[in-house]
Amino acid sequence: MTTATLVVEENDANLKSDVVQEMLKQLKAIDTFDTYEGWSEAKIIDPVVLTKERKREIPVIGDPDEITMSRIKAYYNTLSSLIEVKTGLMAVPMINLSHEGFGRAIVMVGKLIVVDKVLRDVHRWGFPTLDKMVGQTNSTIDKAVALIEKYNDAAKD
Amino acid sequence: MTTATLVVEENDANLKSDVVQEMLKQLKAIDTFDTYEGWSEAKIIDPVVLTKERKREIPVIGDPDEITMSRIKAYYNTLSSLIEVKTGLMAVPMINLSHEGFGRAIVMVGKLIVVDKVLRDVHRWGFPTLDKMVGQTNSTIDKAVALIEKYNDAAKD
Repeated sequence: MTTATLVVEENDANLKSDVVQEMLKQLKAIDTFDTYEGWSEAKIIDPVVLTKERKREIPVIGDPDEITMSRIKAYYNTLSSLIEVKTGLMAVPMINLSHEGFGRAIVMVGKLIVVDKVLRDVHRWGFPTLDKMVGQTNSTIDKAVALIEKYNDAAKD
Repeated sequence: MTTATLVVEENDANLKSDVVQEMLKQLKAIDTFDTYEGWSEAKIIDPVVLTKERKREIPVIGDPDEITMSRIKAYYNTLSSLIEVKTGLMAVPMINLSHEGFGRAIVMVGKLIVVDKVLRDVHRWGFPTLDKMVGQTNSTIDKAVALIEKYNDAAKD
């Protein structure tokens, strides 16, 4: 049983959140080889959680692998999608990563940058717990929505 | 004499423009192997001009090479730098290219996107004449400055 190594419990209440549900949708969208076929939601979302123990197992210096990069893309698609739902305006992510795993991720709404994150150590990307993932993501979305309200003309341009 | 193949004349008045002068500065900045040592300004800027004849020699489908990519980076650095000079606000370029040579280039000022270009056929990037390069670039800068004036609070955020 591989479930022994999972950190997300099958009955974790966060699984039902909009954030996790959208992230699952985005992860499945890029799962072209049907790897997730028959997997539980907990198992699919599990690698997004990077506990201290898991982090310790990843070398400090490393190149970001394809899977991590695709997870980051799925995450910024998730943010964009949820911002769209909340505001009714189209949100577009753009990610720029160097080979060394440093970079920048933004979400654009009209002419406005509503999310702007510096990415570091991309090969060690993840959230300490699923609860923190949901909390931090909702906080990022709230800030984006506030910016869209503040600079509404630019967001609608 | 390789000058026989140059399309930019040594006495082209556009060489003295802010646009070309800044682009030369940016091209020299990334010239880590001192390739341009002893070259005239006309010769350094020359590959940015993609005449019909030159375009015909480049295959329609192709991967963007490192040199073309670095020229595009130099160009968006040039735009950012000239926008900074005109507005006194920091401008930051961000370029996202796929392996197939499609992508997007933006320039950000504060929370505002002031330049937003879809890139296609990046391996065939260039301007038909130096005159058009200067004209189009100045027009892009003018539009950016107008946006910064229009959405000044977002640009200063």
